[in-house]
Amino acid sequence: MIISKELKLTDAQLAEVEAIVAEFDCRIQVIVGAHRCVYAILGDEQHELMFNRLIGLPYVDRVDRIESAYKLMDLRGELASHPIEINGCRIKKDILVIAGPCTVDPQNPNALYETAEAVKEAGAQVLRGGVWKPRTVPYSYQGDTAALELILEARDRTGLPLNIEVMDGWQLDMALEAKVEILQIGTRNALNYSLLKEIGQKTQNTETLVLLKRGRHMAPIDEFIAAAEYVAAGGNPNVMLCPRGTLPGLDDYRNHPDESIIPLLKRKTWAPVIYDPSHAVGRGEFVPHSSKAAIAYGADGLNIEAHIDPATGIGDDPKQAITPEKLGRLIKDVEVISSLGRS
Amino acid sequence: MIISKELKLTDAQLAEVEAIVAEFDCRIQVIVGAHRCVYAILGDEQHELMFNRLIGLPYVDRVDRIESAYKLMDLRGELASHPIEINGCRIKKDILVIAGPCTVDPQNPNALYETAEAVKEAGAQVLRGGVWKPRTVPYSYQGDTAALELILEARDRTGLPLNIEVMDGWQLDMALEAKVEILQIGTRNALNYSLLKEIGQKTQNTETLVLLKRGRHMAPIDEFIAAAEYVAAGGNPNVMLCPRGTLPGLDDYRNHPDESIIPLLKRKTWAPVIYDPSHAVGRGEFVPHSSKAAIAYGADGLNIEAHIDPATGIGDDPKQAITPEKLGRLIKDVEVISSLGRS
Amino acid sequence: MIISKELKLTDAQLAEVEAIVAEFDCRIQVIVGAHRCVYAILGDEQHELMFNRLIGLPYVDRVDRIESAYKLMDLRGELASHPIEINGCRIKKDILVIAGPCTVDPQNPNALYETAEAVKEAGAQVLRGGVWKPRTVPYSYQGDTAALELILEARDRTGLPLNIEVMDGWQLDMALEAKVEILQIGTRNALNYSLLKEIGQKTQNTETLVLLKRGRHMAPIDEFIAAAEYVAAGGNPNVMLCPRGTLPGLDDYRNHPDESIIPLLKRKTWAPVIYDPSHAVGRGEFVPHSSKAAIAYGADGLNIEAHIDPATGIGDDPKQAITPEKLGRLIKDVEVISSLGRS
Amino acid sequence: MIISKELKLTDAQLAEVEAIVAEFDCRIQVIVGAHRCVYAILGDEQHELMFNRLIGLPYVDRVDRIESAYKLMDLRGELASHPIEINGCRIKKDILVIAGPCTVDPQNPNALYETAEAVKEAGAQVLRGGVWKPRTVPYSYQGDTAALELILEARDRTGLPLNIEVMDGWQLDMALEAKVEILQIGTRNALNYSLLKEIGQKTQNTETLVLLKRGRHMAPIDEFIAAAEYVAAGGNPNVMLCPRGTLPGLDDYRNHPDESIIPLLKRKTWAPVIYDPSHAVGRGEFVPHSSKAAIAYGADGLNIEAHIDPATGIGDDPKQAITPEKLGRLIKDVEVISSLGRS
Repeated sequence: MIISKELKLTDAQLAEVEAIVAEFDCRIQVIVGAHRCVYAILGDEQHELMFNRLIGLPYVDRVDRIESAYKLMDLRGELASHPIEINGCRIKKDILVIAGPCTVDPQNPNALYETAEAVKEAGAQVLRGGVWKPRTVPYSYQGDTAALELILEARDRTGLPLNIEVMDGWQLDMALEAKVEILQIGTRNALNYSLLKEIGQKTQNTETLVLLKRGRHMAPIDEFIAAAEYVAAGGNPNVMLCPRGTLPGLDDYRNHPDESIIPLLKRKTWAPVIYDPSHAVGRGEFVPHSSKAAIAYGADGLNIEAHIDPATGIGDDPKQAITPEKLGRLIKDVEVISSLGRS
Repeated sequence: MIISKELKLTDAQLAEVEAIVAEFDCRIQVIVGAHRCVYAILGDEQHELMFNRLIGLPYVDRVDRIESAYKLMDLRGELASHPIEINGCRIKKDILVIAGPCTVDPQNPNALYETAEAVKEAGAQVLRGGVWKPRTVPYSYQGDTAALELILEARDRTGLPLNIEVMDGWQLDMALEAKVEILQIGTRNALNYSLLKEIGQKTQNTETLVLLKRGRHMAPIDEFIAAAEYVAAGGNPNVMLCPRGTLPGLDDYRNHPDESIIPLLKRKTWAPVIYDPSHAVGRGEFVPHSSKAAIAYGADGLNIEAHIDPATGIGDDPKQAITPEKLGRLIKDVEVISSLGRS
Repeated sequence: MIISKELKLTDAQLAEVEAIVAEFDCRIQVIVGAHRCVYAILGDEQHELMFNRLIGLPYVDRVDRIESAYKLMDLRGELASHPIEINGCRIKKDILVIAGPCTVDPQNPNALYETAEAVKEAGAQVLRGGVWKPRTVPYSYQGDTAALELILEARDRTGLPLNIEVMDGWQLDMALEAKVEILQIGTRNALNYSLLKEIGQKTQNTETLVLLKRGRHMAPIDEFIAAAEYVAAGGNPNVMLCPRGTLPGLDDYRNHPDESIIPLLKRKTWAPVIYDPSHAVGRGEFVPHSSKAAIAYGADGLNIEAHIDPATGIGDDPKQAITPEKLGRLIKDVEVISSLGRS
Repeated sequence: MIISKELKLTDAQLAEVEAIVAEFDCRIQVIVGAHRCVYAILGDEQHELMFNRLIGLPYVDRVDRIESAYKLMDLRGELASHPIEINGCRIKKDILVIAGPCTVDPQNPNALYETAEAVKEAGAQVLRGGVWKPRTVPYSYQGDTAALELILEARDRTGLPLNIEVMDGWQLDMALEAKVEILQIGTRNALNYSLLKEIGQKTQNTETLVLLKRGRHMAPIDEFIAAAEYVAAGGNPNVMLCPRGTLPGLDDYRNHPDESIIPLLKRKTWAPVIYDPSHAVGRGEFVPHSSKAAIAYGADGLNIEAHIDPATGIGDDPKQAITPEKLGRLIKDVEVISSLGRS
């Protein structure tokens, strides 16, 4: 931590600061500038109480921490070379493509089965599909547990592992019971720490992957990685980060696309970054643009809404999904971009 | 709903649109402009499937809904004159002041008891205090159920009803068991619909109040009110809205203060609006400014972090709380502003 | 300046850094932390070339300046107690109210004269009125020099000094010729440094005031104050700052109201802050809310669009102006709030 | 225009509206919905006064325009197929690359000449270089007319046409005198309509190109295109749009990258879009990412800061420029991405 001040501390103030940090086995190093002084605290800065007591002193304006807030997800931590693999895709070596309908329609199982076959054919390694849906309005379709059976059937037919969003404990239990391969935490629950802890604990020492969406505000990067740390600290370090745009949206897009956050994340954490272009732009016609941009920015994979017949899908907006045919072209294109290397 | 188009629909297209809306007992009224056509759908527009089918048509770019997405929270709905009262404060007639420490410190019960007495003395009608805390980093202090006993004791000593944040089902159950008067949903769970539903259901037909924080993104107002609708639709319409600033913050503030959202909310919903200046600005020295601004914008109350000795508090930042003495002056000031009327 | 690094500099690197700063008569003080080192540069840090050479070193990631970027506008500078007065209003002691139509309508001089009389009666000390208008679309009404004669006539009739926006050199010359008392720099020219310099130079050693609007982005505060420094460095320190909301707007408002920036500005600069609620909210019905909030946040005055008959005004949006009658009530209300003191 | 209302207009109100629009040779078509009415105004909606009078009616809340605010820059306008070519680059067919130092250093002409040769070698078609610089602080280096001679010499040596920012009339005159090929309007002057008009008029019927930067706020797209319309309406339709990120910045970037705005612009205007990755991200290491993303989003070219030895450049931040070698690789990469087609 660093205390910086316009004026010097008095001797008495300095003595008080030194006494506080000494209680935590730290010590102060003073640096006196022409117009400003800096007091560095040497030692382990993870003592929150020390921080609080310092910031609470009437003559201290500000204390800056200079250490990372997360340990397990840190790029320099021991998990950094930790391999994650699914359905033959060695994540961070190969591009992971997750694709499927926004929402599984229990009235139309064939649409799901055909979409699943088609996205596999197009090159996706994982099938996504909303079983339970977080909807803005309580009177909108909220998903249906019956949809779970259908998507399990689609897994059986295609061999594709599943990515499914869970929003609470009982959905989590059902998904675990069904051995869902990737549990998705949606943007509305991106900071639901109770859920993140519960997922970490219930999947510890398993190979279950967790895909954590970014919250919808333009938040500090550290908060996003620290949320992933909740899952890892619970016992499961297999966490992947999924930016998906922020609010307010950029003009006609559903959100403000945030592909550019990818290399900033990668400077701090080893976690794979799987980008969601479908929510970022919110319209299928722009999903290829955003997908290519994300890979250009270094994404490790994509999470895309695809449907055999977008107009009949029951998701947020049928204009958001792309066809499997378009997905196939997109996958070929992003492989070309990926082959250009990371700048 | 309204479909607007640059070019006219062909007769065949119009026939297709008419056939779709007829299935939902609606009909089309056409308006042909010089450069643009508008097709209005007359009838109940709450048919999501109709909406999806229309937006899914290849020649339709956009369909706008023109009805409110919420019914129970609507200003024009039947609950609009629904009275809410707590500890003698007739909300929307009198200004409600909720005050207390960010976090209850189990090591320091006297600080809580003295703070509780002092905020009551200063004019607060409700005592707030964090028992379980959502913290950015899993290694920070996460709260402690032991703190619940202390704040119940503070309630007994002062007679002040309580406002406590709950983050999941078991915390909710403990809070209900303890008959906590106001359940707070924090900003990180502002769109945790599973929790909102559960709270609505478990408090149906009770007098428990729910204080719903605004999410941290600059979201559309309707999303905020629709989240409250989840609680109301679950069975408890006693919901109050609590804006608290958005991210990214304005320069040195913790968030971007959003007092100005208050009259926009009040044009759409009857829900009382209780503003949280402490998180909006994040520094005690500016809490009076923000509090006065919120009342000037028409807030029905304030939710303020106060502590008998802010420097020793264990909350997010001890600089955020104000002293009960400062709270007392602030309450007098906002009463003056409130007496000026609503512009 | 401060160089901070995760790893220590090598001896050779440190020697190179020391050699560079020595050229600028500065020296290095080293502070070695457990996990991070800090190298402070002692001496005058205003050497841009030194900064560039340091940041250009391959092993330096970041150099932070710790001195203020402005001298004349600095709260601690020699101009801090510099009095500014206009029409009997001792700015920063009394609340300054500038009011008048968005745009002077050359077709309707009586509307201007009556508005001028009425805002004077309501308590305004300065008359505003757009002569030349920055409009989004080139085909919109762009103002008319003929309007200048009318507002000069309004000044003669009422004795009110004038506040007029100028956008380029020839408008400036006409305004100076007419002895306009307050020259306004609009938000679109808030960083037009050529214009700011020219105004500073052409008004040096005069009593002309300059009202500088905030740019429309959520910019760092220092950039705003540094723009004012251009005028002061040109020779005229009589600059007042005018926040007016930022984009994107908050829901239905024209902009995102930013009253809360006021105390942040006041911690850094002595410049008076005159708030513009009319552009912040963009609708007359909310102007009183915003005005009261601005004064609660410590504004020294208000810049308000008022018109004797808003519906017939020719400004951006006739819904934006308020009537003189409403202005009179608003002025009484903000005086009450001002009398509560600065928190 | 469309007036929409919750309740029906009364007969008297409708008659009043009809009388107003009749004065402007328009007429009203009424559409009565179940819960809302819409009144469409048929005819030319460019009558501002009609708009003002309608919005000024006490019973009208809102009037929406449905026509484009710009004519010359409109995608559907007569200039849409208007060819723009420079140095053999057929813009919109070939990718235009503008490259060179942030700022020309008059003390170091060889750095400029070598950079110019090297960027030409790398594949750039245009040389950029700041002669006059808009700097946040008046005490920073503001550019120097002497630099103009140097960059003209660089043009002579390499044959590369020039892109130079001008900030006011006298700089414009000097640039025109020197036959500068591309005049750049910087982000701070993006809405300086006086300058935009002057440029349009002084370059009418010439082949001079104008590169208009986007303002730094997250503004509506239409405002950006309408600013270009000022130049076109002045007499010169050779305008190219240059997005460059918005404020507040995304974490460690200088701005919030906005590559995704490109296809939204292209749906509305025929103007070429040349992206500026250097200011968007603000650090050379991320410029290739942003450049590739911009081309993936459909950009027609790039405007990049490059320097033979970035560490010795005198621009905003020496970390921002890339080397010509890196530029060469980047140009090859973006050609690959461009060859994938527009999604």
